Amino acid sequence: MPQQRRAQVTRRAIVIAAAEEFDRAGYDATPLSAILRRSGVTKGAFYFHFPSKDAVASALIRFQAQVWSKIWQRWTGRGLDPLSTAVELVDEVIRILERDVVVRAGAQLAMRDQETAARWEQLLGGLLRRSAEHGLLRPEIDPAAATRVLYATLVGVRVLSTGRAIGAAQQTGEIWRIVLGGIATADWLRDNPSVPTAAPRPTS
Amino acid sequence: MPQQRRAQVTRRAIVIAAAEEFDRAGYDATPLSAILRRSGVTKGAFYFHFPSKDAVASALIRFQAQVWSKIWQRWTGRGLDPLSTAVELVDEVIRILERDVVVRAGAQLAMRDQETAARWEQLLGGLLRRSAEHGLLRPEIDPAAATRVLYATLVGVRVLSTGRAIGAAQQTGEIWRIVLGGIATADWLRDNPSVPTAAPRPTS
Repeated sequence: MPQQRRAQVTRRAIVIAAAEEFDRAGYDATPLSAILRRSGVTKGAFYFHFPSKDAVASALIRFQAQVWSKIWQRWTGRGLDPLSTAVELVDEVIRILERDVVVRAGAQLAMRDQETAARWEQLLGGLLRRSAEHGLLRPEIDPAAATRVLYATLVGVRVLSTGRAIGAAQQTGEIWRIVLGGIATADWLRDNPSVPTAAPRPTS
Repeated sequence: MPQQRRAQVTRRAIVIAAAEEFDRAGYDATPLSAILRRSGVTKGAFYFHFPSKDAVASALIRFQAQVWSKIWQRWTGRGLDPLSTAVELVDEVIRILERDVVVRAGAQLAMRDQETAARWEQLLGGLLRRSAEHGLLRPEIDPAAATRVLYATLVGVRVLSTGRAIGAAQQTGEIWRIVLGGIATADWLRDNPSVPTAAPRPTS
């Protein structure tokens, strides 16, 4: 294996092992030794790539920011109405958080920063405000309140999803079904039948 | 002050100081010295009342369990329909959690036990299942899914309410407005106009 390629493999092993350990035990409770053990990388090799555990955390935070930025650009660039954009965006974010431990660990680290957390709510709030302006929300719904409720629900799902039979992605469908039923106009719900707002109740 | 009365005052000072410290910094991060400092109680007096910090936590857990038990009995004994019972019960729980640091700290400690957390969701789930049986939920709504969404929202609000301009109690009104709009039948919503399902949108 050429040296440059080997260096990439090592760096990637460190990043994944760190993400898995941070995801499992939290950043503060993860010693460097746990990252070394899980990655099978020596201390010398680690310090060749990163000056500290904190530097790995910074790399994870930068990586998740790039992922979100791409997803945001993709969905806002599709010409969907703002409410559909919000639905698709949230669904993809939740699916990625569930599937990809590297993004999930980075997002967990990023959310320790209150401003980052507030930024997510602002983005979602902007989409719901535009949804109200486009007449996609029922007139009695305050988009700021709807954003707070939706955001709290998503945070709660993330908090509760650990060790649950039902994953966060499945729960997101349930959330949209109920929240959209509570905020969207009848017209929007009729025009967007693919949104699972009226899934049949299980007969069991 | 008679000796028995003085002992009660000291015990109460310890419990309140412990609740305030647990609420602020968390149980694990609170040393006994912080409880002593905040309560103004000597170590000797503390050990007269409690064998350990853990024993204070147990007293807080027992106390919050008694509070919830009383509230549950009161609301389920009023003869309201199950959906209204759920609304009133959740509102009172959230208001008490916001107002009373002793109950809040006890609840936080109790929720570290997965079974206690699951029990809350079961109680709420029972009310929503009976709501479905009574025809108070729209036919397409799965009460178990509605419970998961509502419970996740309440957990999210509790997680996010720290350091927010809008308190958890105000948010609960928003949650009910949106969730009930998404799950309750038009008949139930018409018969329960006091539930804030159609508050006017701020004009600002």
